[in-house]
Amino acid sequence: MTEKVFYLPKGFRYAGVHCGIKPNSPADKLDFALVVSDRPATAAGVYTQNLNCGAPVVYDRERTPGTGFIAIATDSGCANACTGRVGLFNARKMAEYAGEAVGATGDQTLVMSTGVIGVQLPMRAIAQGAEKAAAKLGARYHDFEKAATAIQTTDTRLKVVSREAKLPGGATIRLAAMCKGAAMIGPNMATMLATIVADAALEPNDAQTVLRAAVEDTFNCVSVEGHTSTSDTCILMANGAADPTPLKGADLQCFSNLLLDMCQELAPMIPNDGEGVTHLITIDVTGAPDRASAKLLAQTVANDALVKTAICGADPNWGRIVSATGRCGVPYDPMKVSLKVNGYLLYKDGVPQDFNKEEVSNSIRNNRNTSFELFFQEGDGKIRFWTSDLTQEYVHLNADYTT
Amino acid sequence: MTEKVFYLPKGFRYAGVHCGIKPNSPADKLDFALVVSDRPATAAGVYTQNLNCGAPVVYDRERTPGTGFIAIATDSGCANACTGRVGLFNARKMAEYAGEAVGATGDQTLVMSTGVIGVQLPMRAIAQGAEKAAAKLGARYHDFEKAATAIQTTDTRLKVVSREAKLPGGATIRLAAMCKGAAMIGPNMATMLATIVADAALEPNDAQTVLRAAVEDTFNCVSVEGHTSTSDTCILMANGAADPTPLKGADLQCFSNLLLDMCQELAPMIPNDGEGVTHLITIDVTGAPDRASAKLLAQTVANDALVKTAICGADPNWGRIVSATGRCGVPYDPMKVSLKVNGYLLYKDGVPQDFNKEEVSNSIRNNRNTSFELFFQEGDGKIRFWTSDLTQEYVHLNADYTT
Repeated sequence: MTEKVFYLPKGFRYAGVHCGIKPNSPADKLDFALVVSDRPATAAGVYTQNLNCGAPVVYDRERTPGTGFIAIATDSGCANACTGRVGLFNARKMAEYAGEAVGATGDQTLVMSTGVIGVQLPMRAIAQGAEKAAAKLGARYHDFEKAATAIQTTDTRLKVVSREAKLPGGATIRLAAMCKGAAMIGPNMATMLATIVADAALEPNDAQTVLRAAVEDTFNCVSVEGHTSTSDTCILMANGAADPTPLKGADLQCFSNLLLDMCQELAPMIPNDGEGVTHLITIDVTGAPDRASAKLLAQTVANDALVKTAICGADPNWGRIVSATGRCGVPYDPMKVSLKVNGYLLYKDGVPQDFNKEEVSNSIRNNRNTSFELFFQEGDGKIRFWTSDLTQEYVHLNADYTT
Repeated sequence: MTEKVFYLPKGFRYAGVHCGIKPNSPADKLDFALVVSDRPATAAGVYTQNLNCGAPVVYDRERTPGTGFIAIATDSGCANACTGRVGLFNARKMAEYAGEAVGATGDQTLVMSTGVIGVQLPMRAIAQGAEKAAAKLGARYHDFEKAATAIQTTDTRLKVVSREAKLPGGATIRLAAMCKGAAMIGPNMATMLATIVADAALEPNDAQTVLRAAVEDTFNCVSVEGHTSTSDTCILMANGAADPTPLKGADLQCFSNLLLDMCQELAPMIPNDGEGVTHLITIDVTGAPDRASAKLLAQTVANDALVKTAICGADPNWGRIVSATGRCGVPYDPMKVSLKVNGYLLYKDGVPQDFNKEEVSNSIRNNRNTSFELFFQEGDGKIRFWTSDLTQEYVHLNADYTT
C-alpha cells in the first residue's frame, strides 16, 4: 500500500463523534461532525431544488453567500426534512448548540442533516454531539477522516479529496472536500452533502460563482436513481488562512479551476458507491443541440432502470440506451445517432452494427467502469455524466430502510 | 371457478401461432397474431412519442385514422425498432405477407412488433406466421385468447377485456381488447401494444378522438419503470358488423364512455403484471394546479425507485413519496400537502402524523394493491395513475434479457 498525500487547508479543525441520532445505533457509528475555522470565513452554498427541502437547507440558504462563518455542523441519521415548523426551530437550535460549543453564535454556524425523512431531530443527542465533537476537534488527517465518516449514511467508501496549488499571485493554497451519498441521488443542484474547505480568501459573491460553476459540471452530473433529495447541500468555506487577501483575476480563475478539478474527482465517487452498485457508468454525449439537451439526454439514460439493469447483467442490450434517448423530448434525427459501449461501435447513423456480443459482454463484466459514448449531429452540446448500475442489492437495501 | 362472460364483437376472427421469431424459441411459444375483420373497418391509432419509434409505428401512423382495414398482424420477439431503412422495408413486407394471406392488400393491414430492439425481423418466419395464422383464423374466445397470447413477451398473465352495451339509438354493440406489456412501460402515449376491436361503425376522425381520449386517462397513466418504449401502439378497429351506420351524438358518447371504462380495466393489468411485481400501486392526486401538473406529480412518484422499493419491502417510508413530489418542478406550498397510504393519514399539511408503523406496514405486506392519496391545495388538477413496485426479481429479469 502507498500512502496518499492529502492536503489539509490551514486554520481548520475537524471532529466526528457518536451521539446516537438513531435510537439503538451502535456506539461506533459516528453520526455528528464539526468543521471549524479558526477565523471568520466566507461561505457559499448550493442546495437542492426539491420543494420539500430539509429545514437545514432553509436555514443555510438564508445565510449564504456570506461572511463571518466559524462552523459547519452535520448529523447523519435524521434528515430533518418534512418536519414542519418544529423542524425549522430544531435546525436553528442545532446551529446554536454547535456554535456555542466552539465559542461562536448560531448565526456563525451552518447545519446539514441527512438520513430518514419525516422524523424530528433528537435534540438531546444533537446537544451532546456538539459538546463531544467540540472537545475532540483536531487538525490532522485523522480528524478530517472522522468528520467525513460521521456525515455518511449507507455509504461504504470514504469520499474525500484535496488539492494544493501555487497561485499566479504567489500564494500557496489548499482545498479539501468530503462528501456523502449513495442513494436518493438525482442531478438537480448539489445532490448530496459536501463540505469543501479552503484556506484562500474569497469574497462571498465570488465564492458563490465558482462553487455554482463547479457543482453544475460535477455534482449536478451524477445520479443513482434520479431522486433529487430533500437535503442536497454543497458548502464551500474559505477562511483566508493561507493569505487573507480575497482572490481576484487570474488567482480567482486558478482557484475556480482547482475547485472544478477537485469536484470532478469527488462527484463520481457517489454513484461509484451507490447502494448495491457493481458498475460506475460514464456517459459522454456530444453533438446535442445544446448543453441543456446534452444533459437531459445523458440524464435520461443515466436514470433508466432498463439500461442500468442491463449493465448489471453485463448485457450489451444497446437498444435500451438508444430508446432512452428517444423518450426525453430532445429533438434529433434518429438516423444520425451513433453509440459506442466500452469503445465498441454498436450503432452507427441509425443502423445496428455487427459486433461480437460475447466480447462486449465480457468487457462490461470484467470492468468496474463502463463507458457509453452517444454521438448526435445536431449542434455543439456536450456533457459528461456519471451513474451506477441497478442491482438486486440496491432493491434489497431500499426495500426496508426505515422498518 | 366461475366462467367469466366474454363478449366478442361480430365480424372478427383471430389466430395466434408459433413461427419462430426468436431462434430456438420453444414450439409452444406463440409469437404471431392475426386479427381479421370480415369487412373493411375504420382504424385509429395512438403511438409512442419515442423518437426512435419502431418501423411498424412509422407504417401504421401514416395510415391511421383511416378506413378500409382488414387485418392487424403482430409479432412478439422482435420489435423491428432502431433497424434503419431495412426495418421500414420489412414492416411493409410484413403487412403485405399478412394481407395477402387473408385476401387483402398490405395497405389494408396494420402491423405491430414487440421484443428486442435493434434486430431485423426474420422475414421467413414472418411469412410462415402469416400463412399459418391465416389458416387457423376462428371467431371463438379460444381463438381470441390465442391471439392475445401470441402478442405477449415477458407477460405472465393474459390481458383481455370486453364490453357489451345497448346504445341509446337501439343497436347492441360489443368491444373486446387485448394488450401486452410488462416492462419498458412509461406513460407517454400508448405504452404497450393493444388491439381493440368493436362491431360498431365509426367515422375515422371520431374513432381517433374517442381512442385518444380513452388512452390519455388509461394507458398513458400506467408505468412500470417510466421507459416509453419504441413500439407503443394502441389500435382501435371498428367494423360496423353490429350496425353499419357510423355512431353520432349520444351513441358516440356512449361508445366513448364504454371504451374508456374498458381501458380503465385493461390498463392497470400492465403494471400489475410488471416484471417481478408484487404490488400494484394506485396513485390518486387531487388539488394540483391543473391536470398536467397532477400527472407529472403522480408520474414522478410512480417512477421513483426509492418509492417502489419501499413498497416492495412493505416499508411505510412516506418521506420518499413526499420528497418525490417536490423534485418534479410542479410549484406548490409544501405546508399544504397531505398524504394517505392505504387510507392511513401519514402527513397532514406539511406535518408528520403519528401512526402505527407496524399496522401500516402490514396493510402493505398483506395486500396486492397499495393506495397513495396525495392532497394538494393549489387548484382542481387531479389524476389516477397506476404503477408497480420494484423488486429484486425485476432486476434479475432485466439483467440478462438479450444475452
